[in-house]
Amino acid sequence: MKRLLITGAAGNLGKILREGLKGYADILRLSDISDMGEAGPNEEVVKCDLSDRAAVIDLVKDCDGIVHLGGISIEAAFDDLLQANFLGTYNVYEAARQNGVKRIMFASSNHAIGFHKRTELLDDKAELRPDSLYGVTKCYGEALASYYYDKFDVETVSVRIGSCFPEPKDRRMLATWMSPRDFISLIKAIFDAAMTGHTVMYGVSPNKSVWWNNDHAAFIGWQPQDSSEAFRADIEAKFPEEDRHDPAVIYQGGGFAARGHFED
Amino acid sequence: MKRLLITGAAGNLGKILREGLKGYADILRLSDISDMGEAGPNEEVVKCDLSDRAAVIDLVKDCDGIVHLGGISIEAAFDDLLQANFLGTYNVYEAARQNGVKRIMFASSNHAIGFHKRTELLDDKAELRPDSLYGVTKCYGEALASYYYDKFDVETVSVRIGSCFPEPKDRRMLATWMSPRDFISLIKAIFDAAMTGHTVMYGVSPNKSVWWNNDHAAFIGWQPQDSSEAFRADIEAKFPEEDRHDPAVIYQGGGFAARGHFED
Amino acid sequence: MKRLLITGAAGNLGKILREGLKGYADILRLSDISDMGEAGPNEEVVKCDLSDRAAVIDLVKDCDGIVHLGGISIEAAFDDLLQANFLGTYNVYEAARQNGVKRIMFASSNHAIGFHKRTELLDDKAELRPDSLYGVTKCYGEALASYYYDKFDVETVSVRIGSCFPEPKDRRMLATWMSPRDFISLIKAIFDAAMTGHTVMYGVSPNKSVWWNNDHAAFIGWQPQDSSEAFRADIEAKFPEEDRHDPAVIYQGGGFAARGHFED
Amino acid sequence: MKRLLITGAAGNLGKILREGLKGYADILRLSDISDMGEAGPNEEVVKCDLSDRAAVIDLVKDCDGIVHLGGISIEAAFDDLLQANFLGTYNVYEAARQNGVKRIMFASSNHAIGFHKRTELLDDKAELRPDSLYGVTKCYGEALASYYYDKFDVETVSVRIGSCFPEPKDRRMLATWMSPRDFISLIKAIFDAAMTGHTVMYGVSPNKSVWWNNDHAAFIGWQPQDSSEAFRADIEAKFPEEDRHDPAVIYQGGGFAARGHFED
Amino acid sequence: MKRLLITGAAGNLGKILREGLKGYADILRLSDISDMGEAGPNEEVVKCDLSDRAAVIDLVKDCDGIVHLGGISIEAAFDDLLQANFLGTYNVYEAARQNGVKRIMFASSNHAIGFHKRTELLDDKAELRPDSLYGVTKCYGEALASYYYDKFDVETVSVRIGSCFPEPKDRRMLATWMSPRDFISLIKAIFDAAMTGHTVMYGVSPNKSVWWNNDHAAFIGWQPQDSSEAFRADIEAKFPEEDRHDPAVIYQGGGFAARGHFED
Amino acid sequence: MKRLLITGAAGNLGKILREGLKGYADILRLSDISDMGEAGPNEEVVKCDLSDRAAVIDLVKDCDGIVHLGGISIEAAFDDLLQANFLGTYNVYEAARQNGVKRIMFASSNHAIGFHKRTELLDDKAELRPDSLYGVTKCYGEALASYYYDKFDVETVSVRIGSCFPEPKDRRMLATWMSPRDFISLIKAIFDAAMTGHTVMYGVSPNKSVWWNNDHAAFIGWQPQDSSEAFRADIEAKFPEEDRHDPAVIYQGGGFAARGHFED
Repeated sequence: MKRLLITGAAGNLGKILREGLKGYADILRLSDISDMGEAGPNEEVVKCDLSDRAAVIDLVKDCDGIVHLGGISIEAAFDDLLQANFLGTYNVYEAARQNGVKRIMFASSNHAIGFHKRTELLDDKAELRPDSLYGVTKCYGEALASYYYDKFDVETVSVRIGSCFPEPKDRRMLATWMSPRDFISLIKAIFDAAMTGHTVMYGVSPNKSVWWNNDHAAFIGWQPQDSSEAFRADIEAKFPEEDRHDPAVIYQGGGFAARGHFED
Repeated sequence: MKRLLITGAAGNLGKILREGLKGYADILRLSDISDMGEAGPNEEVVKCDLSDRAAVIDLVKDCDGIVHLGGISIEAAFDDLLQANFLGTYNVYEAARQNGVKRIMFASSNHAIGFHKRTELLDDKAELRPDSLYGVTKCYGEALASYYYDKFDVETVSVRIGSCFPEPKDRRMLATWMSPRDFISLIKAIFDAAMTGHTVMYGVSPNKSVWWNNDHAAFIGWQPQDSSEAFRADIEAKFPEEDRHDPAVIYQGGGFAARGHFED
Repeated sequence: MKRLLITGAAGNLGKILREGLKGYADILRLSDISDMGEAGPNEEVVKCDLSDRAAVIDLVKDCDGIVHLGGISIEAAFDDLLQANFLGTYNVYEAARQNGVKRIMFASSNHAIGFHKRTELLDDKAELRPDSLYGVTKCYGEALASYYYDKFDVETVSVRIGSCFPEPKDRRMLATWMSPRDFISLIKAIFDAAMTGHTVMYGVSPNKSVWWNNDHAAFIGWQPQDSSEAFRADIEAKFPEEDRHDPAVIYQGGGFAARGHFED
Repeated sequence: MKRLLITGAAGNLGKILREGLKGYADILRLSDISDMGEAGPNEEVVKCDLSDRAAVIDLVKDCDGIVHLGGISIEAAFDDLLQANFLGTYNVYEAARQNGVKRIMFASSNHAIGFHKRTELLDDKAELRPDSLYGVTKCYGEALASYYYDKFDVETVSVRIGSCFPEPKDRRMLATWMSPRDFISLIKAIFDAAMTGHTVMYGVSPNKSVWWNNDHAAFIGWQPQDSSEAFRADIEAKFPEEDRHDPAVIYQGGGFAARGHFED
Repeated sequence: MKRLLITGAAGNLGKILREGLKGYADILRLSDISDMGEAGPNEEVVKCDLSDRAAVIDLVKDCDGIVHLGGISIEAAFDDLLQANFLGTYNVYEAARQNGVKRIMFASSNHAIGFHKRTELLDDKAELRPDSLYGVTKCYGEALASYYYDKFDVETVSVRIGSCFPEPKDRRMLATWMSPRDFISLIKAIFDAAMTGHTVMYGVSPNKSVWWNNDHAAFIGWQPQDSSEAFRADIEAKFPEEDRHDPAVIYQGGGFAARGHFED
Repeated sequence: MKRLLITGAAGNLGKILREGLKGYADILRLSDISDMGEAGPNEEVVKCDLSDRAAVIDLVKDCDGIVHLGGISIEAAFDDLLQANFLGTYNVYEAARQNGVKRIMFASSNHAIGFHKRTELLDDKAELRPDSLYGVTKCYGEALASYYYDKFDVETVSVRIGSCFPEPKDRRMLATWMSPRDFISLIKAIFDAAMTGHTVMYGVSPNKSVWWNNDHAAFIGWQPQDSSEAFRADIEAKFPEEDRHDPAVIYQGGGFAARGHFED
């Protein structure tokens, strides 16, 4: 691949990929609304507000693929999400269509299905049950991706990301954790695949407790290899027992499902 | 029911219900951005732009239920949909939550699943495959409805409406037509039901050719009774043979699936 | 059929069949622990405690089929159910095996699945979710029937009966009502069928609101024809609005699901 | 439709359609290896051995559609089936491809699934379980039809025909009977449909006892209207009780499933 | 966990857990109708007849969890099962409810589904097909567990145990064997889980030949690690060829499915 | 096993098994229409044209099992397939029935389902979608196998073989490759199983990219262990990028799906 664009490159996930994808494409074009530091070798750094359509169309020029992480990644006021996630993601897809980009990795989220109980095993056919306005924006993004594939042949793999950090931070993440290494190999698997159409999958390492099933996406050939088990003792020492009547324990979305309406 | 709000009351569907629901609630509150004429007996007429949140919160006050038809109901520029459908529908749900409204009928659309082929029989578990940006806004609306039920106990029946006109207008509508009479009885069935949670169903009369299955919503007890068959001879005389290689014939969304990107 | 045994013949359902099955078999053998009055023409009346195995083995002699309605049909103390429903039903099956009876209609109950929500459409594959100890005895009876078919070739149709009365008595029964006429035609269809194996089906008339699906049992050819709709106006006048947060409204089992532990 | 070819026109089904489709196409081209009498108005009569490829290619010229009934329709020696059904059906499809025929109705048979039990409800996704070599030829025909659609865009509706006679002839046919009138309306529905791809459905009237489900083909809009019930009393008088241990009663294929290897 | 009760502690499974769960809870309370020897450190030994309700209510006091292995674990006379399994298990659940016990591991059995063929892969949704009266008592126990969770919030994991012995004893056990080590880790996984609701799973090690699928219970995070393969050579040497027409080979329940009615 | 017959023994697969199954049966009887060289120790070599029924009946005498690889294994003219695959396979099954052979491994092919897209995960219930006339002959063979099991108790495992060569030869084979070692262990697992009925499974090694799922056949206990990954670098160096609009890339059947009608 010649040029791969990463939006949201200044964020947590963006930093992981900026480092992890070095050498994967000839050039990594990095974009964010925040500061990303200097461009390193084989990097292009482009500050860009994704809600500015003209700027996004420029940004996407000459790119072969896009890893779309940009936008707000926590619960937020609807009006902020309207700009960053609804409009921003539309602009990215429209720019991809106009520039002939072949494939996008869309950073969807487990919060698109966060109101399912922990005792359920979900696959890509699970009913959408967002646990937050943020989760609603991810349902929207997946629908938009489906549309751009069906009508304009822009392929997407929508990855419902669990919790991608160097280490799991609480008991829930023992189930939802995806290691940075597994995330990096996922991105490579997605862009290496011969064809993907629009595929929905879950971004999670093979932890001991499993809520999500990626069998339907086995054609992609992703083989994650890490597990949260190494961190269990520490986490369990740090956090008291979970209360099975707490919505944050009952529902897959955890705290997102438990909290009330976002107040600015 | 004491007061039922109808948004989009000046539109095609709104007019059908304004007439058809006379006497169903003590008061029909009618709202639109366009002119709705004078209020009749047991009517309240409130001009309102759904993208104005404060206005919508006022509009919803004292209502027991909402038939949310408002917004753009054809393919349109994304920026227009952003205001009318994304923001407008959010405002309606947020107003419902703040005002304690129990149940909403959300006018979703067959265009949320319009990229399925005509040869498929869909039910509520069918994969979302929107055929237009308009269809994407309906996917979003259903996700929002799911969220407001799961978290705030606001019930919704999302009705993927086929084609609701006095008569079917073309060959495709022989399959997608819902008679105004069946639409009216559907609204009554929805608000008469003891509980609905968030239910997705299809708004279509029992025509001869069937693409959609409502068995899962049989608890609602809707018994539509009309059929497009009475209009078949006329329609077939008026319209030439369908070309089975035309996307408008292949896909359930018809012309919406066949047309390209919306250009203002 | 020469001789058809009805257990529980003095009960509500038993009386309906005693009258309705006149002439269907050469002889109706009627059994109950309570008084059943005099034997009419082509009737045999045998008082019998179903928990007395030897008596039951005698009772079943020379019968070609059994309609097993006997036992306790409301929530009760476990110790009473142990005798009447657990032991009683075993005795009936064991007597059937020893006497070579070919087929049994087992009066199961919707309370075997009463903790499913009203918004679900159930078929024979629905998870068992009993709403009462009574419901648990029906789950047991279905399992026993399965066993006697698989191992001893005694066929059973287990009918999860809704509410079989001359008229529906409350709002819930608008959905669960089976008319006596439909019940009678169901029994005939069951014993007329060439083979049944062990089949689970729902005993309900084609009412407007539908919770249960019998498609899998379409081979039996039962065509029920009544509807609770004729009684709706009266029922709705008599009963106030249903509260959708009341367990008796949320769950299919109604009051059985809502009540607590049975206290003698 | 200008010219519709019927193969096997001298057989039972062929005669029903020769009469019933008068006026449906401008010209009915009738073909058989047996004598078909004189051509009537708007008829062309062509004697043809379907195992003669060149002859079949000629036969199909200028046809818009084909109703392929030709071949052996009972159990037979494999070597005879090899010519009549394997080779014959291939020749018809190859001729259709070469002549640009758009759609074929392939007379498949319930004997393609005849080893399913009567107590099962089958749809188009049911496992193939042929009950005879004849049934195996129908599985083959459906596979060939799938291939010609996927690769060459020749559409087929494969109809697993039950028992199409003026009246049901035995107890099994009370379930499998398709009235000639319903068969005729089925053929019209198939050729009237805008698109069909390769669709598998069951050819049966809405009898009381139902083994087969056509919901997935509801897009075709076939509305059969007859029932075997009118003939039940006569049939039941004529035929003794069915033995539920007889393979001819256990399996949907009836006598085909019960008989052993065909001996010439 | 402070105090974990094990019923049936004198049996084969009970002994495995008495040893294997040392140190898992502060105190193991051990109960059986048979002699269990002296209490070791951190053990309480309580002789108890599970059919004595008052005794069971006492037994359960101050326990946080229950591993319910007690009762008859082979085919037996119904009257014995009535006391030990039907009444005994009810008493345990009722005692759990009255004492506020949070979670129970119920020792269900593969004999609840033993009349499925070996060639089928079952999960928790498989139809119940008990192969014995013993198996029927396990179906009952699962239904009771479902009821106590839905109504009284007592959680259960019902484990359909295969064959838990130090080594597999015959050819069938090459598929059904669960090692003691895997059984112990299963119990820990069940009581460590944050929530379980009522979950049905299979107790079997990852042997080469697999009949049962636990994917739906992946949230529990059980990772069994043993295999019967180490014992294959010995077993195959010891046991002659299996006859595929023998019910003990055809059905998953093995000898239970093959034997006739239990005669005392 | 005393005597195992391998048809098609001179072909690629036959050679692998001739070598790999040495010692598995007392005698390997090898058959082909082509030269197979001299019989080695414990081998019988029988030249035989499978379209000659009498010869095949002789060939099968005294065999306990058959590995049926014989026939044409590439796309070919229908008339050639008619003899080699349709007639040849029938002769093998009929000979097995007449000689009381218990089990057959039928070499089906991925080309029986080759018109499914690469992005789908198929199991044995996947719709048949042959990609070639060759693929159609495999659909036929599976149907014939089903028939011979249901009626004559001749068991078959139909293996839809991917690509069995010492090494994968192109990019597609990175997904479809089955190593010779895994093929050999599959054959042993099939003939070692206590019962198989008619089972359909996929012959493929556990490669990184997965299109096929054998969970339903887990009872057979096959544990393949190789992967194409070792060959990836070489293959990717040798072959240019795949074009996702090329039918050979879109469809699982690869080149078979992409090529047109076979012209002799």
